[in-house]
Amino acid sequence: MNPLQLFDTESSTFTYLLFTPGQPDAILIDPVARHWERDLQQLDRLGLQLAFVLETHVHADHVTSAGKLCGITGAKSAAPTGCGVGPADMQLNDGDQIAFADGEKICVIHTPGHTAGSMSYVWRDNVFTGDTLLIDGCGRTDFQSGSADALYTSVTTRLFSLPDDTRVWPAHDYKGRSASTIGWEKIHNARLAQSSRNDFIALMDSLHLPRPKLLEIAVTANQNLGLPHNA
Amino acid sequence: MNPLQLFDTESSTFTYLLFTPGQPDAILIDPVARHWERDLQQLDRLGLQLAFVLETHVHADHVTSAGKLCGITGAKSAAPTGCGVGPADMQLNDGDQIAFADGEKICVIHTPGHTAGSMSYVWRDNVFTGDTLLIDGCGRTDFQSGSADALYTSVTTRLFSLPDDTRVWPAHDYKGRSASTIGWEKIHNARLAQSSRNDFIALMDSLHLPRPKLLEIAVTANQNLGLPHNA
Repeated sequence: MNPLQLFDTESSTFTYLLFTPGQPDAILIDPVARHWERDLQQLDRLGLQLAFVLETHVHADHVTSAGKLCGITGAKSAAPTGCGVGPADMQLNDGDQIAFADGEKICVIHTPGHTAGSMSYVWRDNVFTGDTLLIDGCGRTDFQSGSADALYTSVTTRLFSLPDDTRVWPAHDYKGRSASTIGWEKIHNARLAQSSRNDFIALMDSLHLPRPKLLEIAVTANQNLGLPHNA
Repeated sequence: MNPLQLFDTESSTFTYLLFTPGQPDAILIDPVARHWERDLQQLDRLGLQLAFVLETHVHADHVTSAGKLCGITGAKSAAPTGCGVGPADMQLNDGDQIAFADGEKICVIHTPGHTAGSMSYVWRDNVFTGDTLLIDGCGRTDFQSGSADALYTSVTTRLFSLPDDTRVWPAHDYKGRSASTIGWEKIHNARLAQSSRNDFIALMDSLHLPRPKLLEIAVTANQNLGLPHNA
């Protein structure tokens, strides 16, 4: 089963809606604040009820709608432990499983590197990789306790050990691409397929990317599930 | 199984990629000329081989990549009979079935109204409705042998007779929406849910929409699968 892939053109963020035919339970991964109505309406049109909202990490480029959506629907919010999302209903750890619908489960894999707390989520033959593994690339590792060394380990030992036909659904794409597979990324990923650990670390150290404009605002907001701090 | 939904921002066209896990066969519905490389790369990343390219109708707002994709991959092109797509490998009629992968089939439903030849395609519990049924709306009926009377019949008697939980995947959306269900559209569709036939026809007659800029160019090109006429 593929998720429904939703897109935010401002931050090039993918939000994922997971559900199975005949089951009302749905999960949203990484919803974006300005699309909270879009996402509620999408749930309504598909006859779905939101059970959980999952964050792959504390985002630095957009604000989540997790708190708002959970407040409206009664869904449970879940965030990686170690990301400092205090008000989340569930603090997720490596190896946790989230059960939903009838027999569906999401397996939590700790994949630090983009941030220290970053998680990936496996559902059936899909993996939602956040900013850890992108299509033909990876997330930056130069802020929020990022670590190129940790990211290399996360991708090459945790994600690349998933079956080759596992579909990869990243949190972002900036070039109009939608999905990939573990098998394709193992062979072709421009940063991680053929690089030694040291070469990868040197590459990431050399990027000198500009500081995200929304860094402080977004991180502070997302650690409160996107809700005002006086709420 | 959900299709992968791909988007063209110029014409707000959805292209759909249909496949099932573990099976290499894939189908594209309504691919857009300028995205032919994107779509081939997407097939490659997912380890898929293109078996068929289907057109829901002869589009007036964009040019198809069907001919190019089929030429490169060896896939078969399929278009509705009555749309004047002479070079298509298959001319589709109401009730036809297209078999692909292992036991998968697409059922062809003739749903005239946007154009006289328009088809909808049913795959499992999904229906690809082209410009016949849009989310909370419908396609225009004022050119290319369009008919509001025929569209009303197509939607209310053919599409609305599908099971309520059938997911609706339209050829366009202009408001950031992705998918719907037959059940939702039967109750809520602003043009078709509560309208009598006569009210609907009067509404469509009153729209006075501007003529599509690409009408002649696109229709002529699409009747040749998007290939140059001297090819």
